[in-house]
Amino acid sequence: MHEMPLYEGKAKILYATDDPAVLLVQFKDSATAFNAQKKGEIANKGQINCAIATKIFQYLAQQGIPSHFIRQVSSNQMLVQALQIIPLEVVVRNIAAGSLCQRLGIEMGTKLREPLVEFFYKNDSLGDPLVTNAHIQLLGIATPQQLDQLAQLALKINSYLQTFFASAKLILVDFKLEFGMDKTGKILLADEISPDSCRLWDDREGALRDRIMDKDRFRQDLGKIAETYQEVADRIQAVGLQNAANGGY
Amino acid sequence: MHEMPLYEGKAKILYATDDPAVLLVQFKDSATAFNAQKKGEIANKGQINCAIATKIFQYLAQQGIPSHFIRQVSSNQMLVQALQIIPLEVVVRNIAAGSLCQRLGIEMGTKLREPLVEFFYKNDSLGDPLVTNAHIQLLGIATPQQLDQLAQLALKINSYLQTFFASAKLILVDFKLEFGMDKTGKILLADEISPDSCRLWDDREGALRDRIMDKDRFRQDLGKIAETYQEVADRIQAVGLQNAANGGY
Repeated sequence: MHEMPLYEGKAKILYATDDPAVLLVQFKDSATAFNAQKKGEIANKGQINCAIATKIFQYLAQQGIPSHFIRQVSSNQMLVQALQIIPLEVVVRNIAAGSLCQRLGIEMGTKLREPLVEFFYKNDSLGDPLVTNAHIQLLGIATPQQLDQLAQLALKINSYLQTFFASAKLILVDFKLEFGMDKTGKILLADEISPDSCRLWDDREGALRDRIMDKDRFRQDLGKIAETYQEVADRIQAVGLQNAANGGY
Repeated sequence: MHEMPLYEGKAKILYATDDPAVLLVQFKDSATAFNAQKKGEIANKGQINCAIATKIFQYLAQQGIPSHFIRQVSSNQMLVQALQIIPLEVVVRNIAAGSLCQRLGIEMGTKLREPLVEFFYKNDSLGDPLVTNAHIQLLGIATPQQLDQLAQLALKINSYLQTFFASAKLILVDFKLEFGMDKTGKILLADEISPDSCRLWDDREGALRDRIMDKDRFRQDLGKIAETYQEVADRIQAVGLQNAANGGY
């Protein structure tokens, strides 16, 4: 069914299936950071992220957010709809961290008055540069209407995910989304949502370095990386979907 | 009248005058590039840029574009209104060059379908980063209404300047503007417009490196730097203001 990958990325492998409208995604244990300048392995990350992404796609579906997710088919594999991927990373930030602090000199940990949406052009050789709406028009990536739709979807997903992670005693600092279009032009959430693509801080007192529950542990060599990913998975699995949903809207 | 500078920048020195609402700007021969990593001198640049900026501010005033310019008072000095400077570099591009090509992989020399407006946060220690409208709100630099006004003003100035430079057989590739507010909150054009802040290409056949008529000659060590600045000044001085204006709107 899937000997030859269609595409192998930094954290996932994509295989064709017998149905051209369906792809198989296999989650890898490999981890990369800083545009793949730093590389490593996180034990069981493939399984952990597949479980987390599955739970989150199911939760978002309950809230009416459409995604490419069809179903989990093994511990580290899921079936997804084949989409035309929009080459943008859509980042939503609730608290300043990472590149926002470096670029704009905002102090790490600053709560933003309102969620910030940023678009980055998905292009490894250019280092995924920040782009403005005008750049996106210039590059012909998306129409102004599609961009509005992406931003509105991202903000909605942010609200739902904040509630979801709060049920797991996790603070959603920021996260990255990718979207794609089906054959009818409908925009669906794609890629994954996991500690690889979110900044999550433990919602308790203590030094920040001990509260970091995401890929920053790997980026910054903070230790207990695999254990932390597992801890996020365990907390998330314990969240009842209806409970999380009820906490929300 | 002006022993102690209020501020010394890379290309200009600012002095107070007896009138707190008026400043004296002295244009320097120093040139810098790549966020001041490259430094040098261009013979007579202070006088040349003072003359060019004076002519352009006068031309724009004729078109109804308000600026801080009051009058030239010596070969390398002008009096300007003291403004509260908005810490943004407003860049308008007609043809792809420079950082746009590096950041987005667009081929140098590509004519843009419509002029592109970009905002950069004026902050030397951060390297003047590109900012989106949302970043500008977050940093509290300008309101959405002020940003709209800046973009509209920049596009108007672009139209007038394209006409003006065309009269001097120069193609306006891109340029950087700065703006400030007077005490009533009115937005005025500030800083300077010169071959330091514009990319200008000679409007004739030939290799591009021979047609570059701006600071890129210094950035890229293309030679004939001072001669080229002088050539731009000579061509611009020969343009009758009414003629250039009549060519426009």
